[in-house]
Amino acid sequence: MKKFEEKTMQSTEIFKGKVVHLQVDDVLLPNGKQAKREIIHHPGAVAIIPITNDGKLVLVEQYRKALERSIIEIPAGKLEPGEDPALCAKRELEEETGYGAGELTYIQSFATSPGFANEIIHLYVAKDLYKVENKRELDEDEFVSLIEVTLEEAEQMVKNEQIFDAKPAFSLLWMKLNEM
Amino acid sequence: MKKFEEKTMQSTEIFKGKVVHLQVDDVLLPNGKQAKREIIHHPGAVAIIPITNDGKLVLVEQYRKALERSIIEIPAGKLEPGEDPALCAKRELEEETGYGAGELTYIQSFATSPGFANEIIHLYVAKDLYKVENKRELDEDEFVSLIEVTLEEAEQMVKNEQIFDAKPAFSLLWMKLNEM
Repeated sequence: MKKFEEKTMQSTEIFKGKVVHLQVDDVLLPNGKQAKREIIHHPGAVAIIPITNDGKLVLVEQYRKALERSIIEIPAGKLEPGEDPALCAKRELEEETGYGAGELTYIQSFATSPGFANEIIHLYVAKDLYKVENKRELDEDEFVSLIEVTLEEAEQMVKNEQIFDAKPAFSLLWMKLNEM
Repeated sequence: MKKFEEKTMQSTEIFKGKVVHLQVDDVLLPNGKQAKREIIHHPGAVAIIPITNDGKLVLVEQYRKALERSIIEIPAGKLEPGEDPALCAKRELEEETGYGAGELTYIQSFATSPGFANEIIHLYVAKDLYKVENKRELDEDEFVSLIEVTLEEAEQMVKNEQIFDAKPAFSLLWMKLNEM
């Protein structure tokens, strides 16, 4: 779909970081005028809804510097260049929770902030979980703690804003609709 | 919640744009090591689930330069500095759809990309819709077209990836659970 396409007249790279790149594009609008677009490039990510054999949801708590607080999320992580999202989902699930998944099913993908970033998250549900021996280590700048909760407990965490992120918010609704 | 807090040792402003600011923070990790955090500052936004009196969902199609494609979203827009989110929701609903809402109800707020951005979206549902005469204009660099669909049509749009954004994806699940 290319309706209302904005043609790039000039693209200026502002910053190339470890996680994000920032560029500013001069674009030609559908009405012939010009505008600037500030665009964040992100490698994309996966997120996993891990459901234990007794029906609990596995959540991870971590500090998010951008928000200056800890929040509770589902396991998630950035794609390595060229990495298959399903393999990335398995890796991140193991690194963050110590679980392997007998069953990993793709749900859907979505852009998180299309107004300024190209980040796309690929969402999976992981079932038939088992503890991995000698699990892979977290990245050395990553600190997470695990919480296993019932759906009702997770909904309470949304109400008191411990869960404060689009991924688990979407996941809880998805679980309810799929009667998990 | 401050678990695993990362203390800022130094914060460097890289870019101050019209929409986003980018800074890189040197942080002290819980294990005493240091790391860099790339952080996008965003003013925050609102998004609205507008439901017509015959139960249809009002969607907007617009070109998203970051994705280099058009996607179909629910009405949404950035907060002005200090703006009350409910007032912003009314303004954006009117600008993007031409509708006023007899009933505007807050649902919940969530971070969209907490790994690198502080954007928070405040989500509302708008009902008892009426056409506004002499509606407010869109921003001059904004082009949207309106689509009113049933919930089933919207779900089909998720399947074929015309709807490709966390906000409407969440909204559809929310509508189903609230039997709209």
